[in-house]
Amino acid sequence: MKIAYQGEPGAFSEAASRQVNAMADLLPCRAFEDVFAAVNEGRVDYGVLPIENSIGGSIHRNFDLLQQNDLPIVAELEVPVVHHLLALPGTTLPEVKRIYSHPQGLAQCEHFLQTLIGVELIASYDTAGSAKMIATNRMTDAAAIASRRAGEVFGLDVLKAGIQDYEHNTTRFLVIGRKAVSDAPHDKTSIVFTLPNEPGALFKALSAFALRGIGLTKLESRPMPARKWEYLFYMDLKASPEQPACQRALAHLAEIAPTLRVLGSYASCKPT
Amino acid sequence: MKIAYQGEPGAFSEAASRQVNAMADLLPCRAFEDVFAAVNEGRVDYGVLPIENSIGGSIHRNFDLLQQNDLPIVAELEVPVVHHLLALPGTTLPEVKRIYSHPQGLAQCEHFLQTLIGVELIASYDTAGSAKMIATNRMTDAAAIASRRAGEVFGLDVLKAGIQDYEHNTTRFLVIGRKAVSDAPHDKTSIVFTLPNEPGALFKALSAFALRGIGLTKLESRPMPARKWEYLFYMDLKASPEQPACQRALAHLAEIAPTLRVLGSYASCKPT
Repeated sequence: MKIAYQGEPGAFSEAASRQVNAMADLLPCRAFEDVFAAVNEGRVDYGVLPIENSIGGSIHRNFDLLQQNDLPIVAELEVPVVHHLLALPGTTLPEVKRIYSHPQGLAQCEHFLQTLIGVELIASYDTAGSAKMIATNRMTDAAAIASRRAGEVFGLDVLKAGIQDYEHNTTRFLVIGRKAVSDAPHDKTSIVFTLPNEPGALFKALSAFALRGIGLTKLESRPMPARKWEYLFYMDLKASPEQPACQRALAHLAEIAPTLRVLGSYASCKPT
Repeated sequence: MKIAYQGEPGAFSEAASRQVNAMADLLPCRAFEDVFAAVNEGRVDYGVLPIENSIGGSIHRNFDLLQQNDLPIVAELEVPVVHHLLALPGTTLPEVKRIYSHPQGLAQCEHFLQTLIGVELIASYDTAGSAKMIATNRMTDAAAIASRRAGEVFGLDVLKAGIQDYEHNTTRFLVIGRKAVSDAPHDKTSIVFTLPNEPGALFKALSAFALRGIGLTKLESRPMPARKWEYLFYMDLKASPEQPACQRALAHLAEIAPTLRVLGSYASCKPT
């Protein structure tokens, strides 16, 4: 099995890919677009994409890309996010003048970072990539915020462990493939739809599910670039179209929504 | 009148501030947090914040900051976004090897950027800041994507005008103050609320407005960091609590929502 993910080895997306299949060949990609392309062109079997962090919120780019591509969601999983301050062996905390990480990494360690005086925070492309840069350029006065594994991969020491503000910092990932798979029973469905621009439209759309007792776990709206202040709605349902109630709810929604697409039906990760 | 905004002179937030009051003293701030602080501490009368772009979507950080602060929204306005490619006088397009801008600036000019071969795209803190950097460092092989005014402020020429993908690229801004003002009749209200984690909760919340014929123009959810996969909901209503129906709808919502706060009631910008 081959799996593509965005980022460098040591990225949380790599950990998520290993969780899908510990034996898989992994393909690190520069951008989320490249993950979609690798799956689309058959270079890998699956792509692993972060979709939401419990602190930072949705990764909107991936909602947009799910809609622009035609690759079904086949699974979801959750990965705990534990951030460490990493530096070259020998560097001590008082010597650190600059800290690099993804903007979300910096934001998720705000409490710790506020205890440091006169340290410059620099946003970079990704967490593991920051660790790589410090190792490659032998930066003795800088540190990165990234995973423990990123430190191992690039030969950096842990200067300070577990520096994230919230203990249950978790990222939810989606797995995309070229066709729907059905080994585990599906209990979750992701859809995207548009609505007429009239009062009560969203209320009517939600009625299709609420009146049938089908729960929602996520509602996200994204702009339609070609239509100012109109939106695409993304919704996660606690149900599968294999269940008649869900099938009827989707048919009901289609009466209201000018466009409706099922992005995937899959087994939820059921966090413990 | 004194107004704070985030960014450098030439930023779209500066144009929005000028639109609020062309004669006001303007205070450029490094970060959105600094705009809130400047209003809170009385150093300025108002703060101007981008809240949503018609192509890129919500500016989530400002939703979070509206909720964390206690400064009412007193007005909204829209500013058309026209991006230009700016470079030092004498630099020609074939000489440009790197282009700097805010990630949203780069994303909004994708079609034009794809026509350039071998040019590195570099994400930076803001659009006008990129123009400033090129001017300050006399970078003869680089260009910035920013407003025409940013070029004027920092002495850069327009290499290529109007390079954004979509013609009606527009950013909506909110004005925050220390107390609600009521010179123009209010027809729009922004609220934030939480919901019990049970099926149909959002449907019930929307019923308070839909059943009274009150339209919504925006629904945004943001994570509650301390409670994994639970959300704060932000909603814009086409109504004012001065209207009895809206007042009753808010009382109705308060029966369902454990917490509910009005972020402001103000005159909508009524785009033409």
